[in-house]
Amino acid sequence: MNYSYISHLYCPKCLQTYAKEAIHHLCDCGAPLLVEYNLDQLAKDWKPTDLVQRKPDLWRYHELLPVQSEEHVTTMGEGMTPLLPMPALGEDMDLPHLLMKDEGIIPTGAFKARGAAVGVSKAKELGVTSLAMPTNGNAGAAWSLYAARANISSTIVMPVDAPSITRSECALSGANLFLVNGLISDAGKMVGEAVQKHGLYDVSTLKEPYRIEGKKTMGLEIAEQLNWQLPDVILYPTGGGVGLIGIYKALQELQALGWLEGQKLPRLVAVQAEGCAPIVEAWKQGKTESIFWENSRTQAFGINVPKAIGDFLILHAIYETKGCAIAVEEEAILEEQKRVARLEGSFVCPEGAATFLAARKLREENWIKKDEQVVVLNTGAGIKYPDTAEVEVPVLEPGDSLPLDASFVK
Amino acid sequence: MNYSYISHLYCPKCLQTYAKEAIHHLCDCGAPLLVEYNLDQLAKDWKPTDLVQRKPDLWRYHELLPVQSEEHVTTMGEGMTPLLPMPALGEDMDLPHLLMKDEGIIPTGAFKARGAAVGVSKAKELGVTSLAMPTNGNAGAAWSLYAARANISSTIVMPVDAPSITRSECALSGANLFLVNGLISDAGKMVGEAVQKHGLYDVSTLKEPYRIEGKKTMGLEIAEQLNWQLPDVILYPTGGGVGLIGIYKALQELQALGWLEGQKLPRLVAVQAEGCAPIVEAWKQGKTESIFWENSRTQAFGINVPKAIGDFLILHAIYETKGCAIAVEEEAILEEQKRVARLEGSFVCPEGAATFLAARKLREENWIKKDEQVVVLNTGAGIKYPDTAEVEVPVLEPGDSLPLDASFVK
Repeated sequence: MNYSYISHLYCPKCLQTYAKEAIHHLCDCGAPLLVEYNLDQLAKDWKPTDLVQRKPDLWRYHELLPVQSEEHVTTMGEGMTPLLPMPALGEDMDLPHLLMKDEGIIPTGAFKARGAAVGVSKAKELGVTSLAMPTNGNAGAAWSLYAARANISSTIVMPVDAPSITRSECALSGANLFLVNGLISDAGKMVGEAVQKHGLYDVSTLKEPYRIEGKKTMGLEIAEQLNWQLPDVILYPTGGGVGLIGIYKALQELQALGWLEGQKLPRLVAVQAEGCAPIVEAWKQGKTESIFWENSRTQAFGINVPKAIGDFLILHAIYETKGCAIAVEEEAILEEQKRVARLEGSFVCPEGAATFLAARKLREENWIKKDEQVVVLNTGAGIKYPDTAEVEVPVLEPGDSLPLDASFVK
Repeated sequence: MNYSYISHLYCPKCLQTYAKEAIHHLCDCGAPLLVEYNLDQLAKDWKPTDLVQRKPDLWRYHELLPVQSEEHVTTMGEGMTPLLPMPALGEDMDLPHLLMKDEGIIPTGAFKARGAAVGVSKAKELGVTSLAMPTNGNAGAAWSLYAARANISSTIVMPVDAPSITRSECALSGANLFLVNGLISDAGKMVGEAVQKHGLYDVSTLKEPYRIEGKKTMGLEIAEQLNWQLPDVILYPTGGGVGLIGIYKALQELQALGWLEGQKLPRLVAVQAEGCAPIVEAWKQGKTESIFWENSRTQAFGINVPKAIGDFLILHAIYETKGCAIAVEEEAILEEQKRVARLEGSFVCPEGAATFLAARKLREENWIKKDEQVVVLNTGAGIKYPDTAEVEVPVLEPGDSLPLDASFVK
């Protein structure tokens, strides 16, 4: 029994393979690399009941993660986030079997912690001492904090428009933080130059192969939490799309292990905002790659990614599972966020709200059937975006009576 | 096997008892009521191994919680928060066995979710349809969101100075939210009047007996996570002190169940800020009750409570466990917050930072010995207080080179 059953890295485009012992970024052909495991051996050594006594974090799946020695694991207890029934919201959208995977209940308040935990741990194992990345905010926050825990220095560049709380997180971690008057693509170029010049370890989305391994644990958890009976549909807010690619990879690995007993995979849905919908556009046209989306805009900042480096993998996962891609109206996102809070008590992030909105729309179009089990990924806590929820509240003086009337009191 | 082994309510001051079926607030003598369980019967019916297969949330301890029917459980997956080793910070403060119980990894981002989950669930069971409370922010956020999930309406009053994010949370939940130009005590009087006038269910701190049952699960979890071997010291940031009272109650109940095999209870430490230290003052003088602290002030807003209604219970728990109460310097809190982030990657709340500072101080005074195992409660996520971490970050233009030099790169 090894701690990890990692075998090697491979390119999903040209199939070239790479040894697991060295540092690798993109394939020579320019595509992201994926991790392959010794699944035949693992199928013999590992079974679902082995998980029962393990801690409720993502390291319970360490055999299917790339870190080979437990001593390199850098953890803050991330993973095994709640999978919650949403009966009132489900009734409102005529989906009685609606569930939310709540990635707000995780260190740093966003699902980015999964990628950072596994990515930083593997970086430590590979001997990395300095990493760098461009970010729309949450990923930079997660990576810089996990890097601090691993005693790795980090250089982070984010747009000035990124959520200000993520700026505080990076700064507090001791990162070398810079803002850029521009987009994440501008930040990316600046990081690329610094990586060349200073020999930093580049952890831009999919430019290191291990972040996706962290993200895939969302898929492993959904399967385990549903007692290895897959849902019919999983909806995911899609910017870089690493989570969707990861969930698809996880489910394929579980199939290979024989843990899913011939079940069909869930239809995977990539959710985007109308102001930045390159994957939706590509999917509508049946393409296998997307085109850069000019002047992209959405308040769901985490999915403002005009061209994802893993677009071909996202589209492949959608086609293979008979899923779809859908764009939601910008104006309706905050209304849906409010509805989720009022009906279910969850303060979801705008990206999560967009995803509930997509479920609603797909139900209306009958693409999702009423009796289907549907999992919506809420990728972060609403409290990370304090400005999205505008509130006006009456201010009283001490001694005032509360202006309640009968209609307030049920 | 009952779902809950609740027996009745009792007053810890005058020992009067109350039936569990009716709604009760304070005892006739003015003291808070506590919940008693049929521990003799439960000791026969329940053992630690029964927990292994249960979900990682606080409802795994449902036998020791007051909700009698599972259908009334209102949950967002709260509990079983990480108990993390803090080796780098521990080395820095000469405490190699330092642990953090991280209550930031919970719905609403603060430990208040525990009290709200259990309190709202029990309110639902008792037929409540409208609740009301004064709050310093986080409790109101948690209660209004859980109430929304339970379809109970809520009326919340908080000081204008309370963290603005908690205002958004309440408003988003659909609560009747009011701000008051004053302190939580002013809010309390206004809520008291409305409770009388409109027959609302009063869930002010310790005015309903069930919040403490939710909070006590922190103690149950610490014991279970350490495999039923108690730590030497537990430090807790103390405002209303419900968590500390709850942890003490939990450990006594575990003793009664025979799960702790004659172990000594950990020394419980109440941590306050110099600007609001009524419990510290009372403890120094060996008193059993505290005196109202005039003009209280601290940036650790959650522990700005000038007179806790449960002060006698807090002091009792400290005396019985040979613990202590300690006040920390206001100016040092944010420095400690930064240190925790840089060394361990955790963005703790100011109350949590104050608690680490207290551990540091007690180690310096040798009140805590080097080889002792110490648990610090971080009661919430730092991201709920975006303004505490002031950051200055250079802004660059697209195409600029990052101004890194060799000293930046390890």
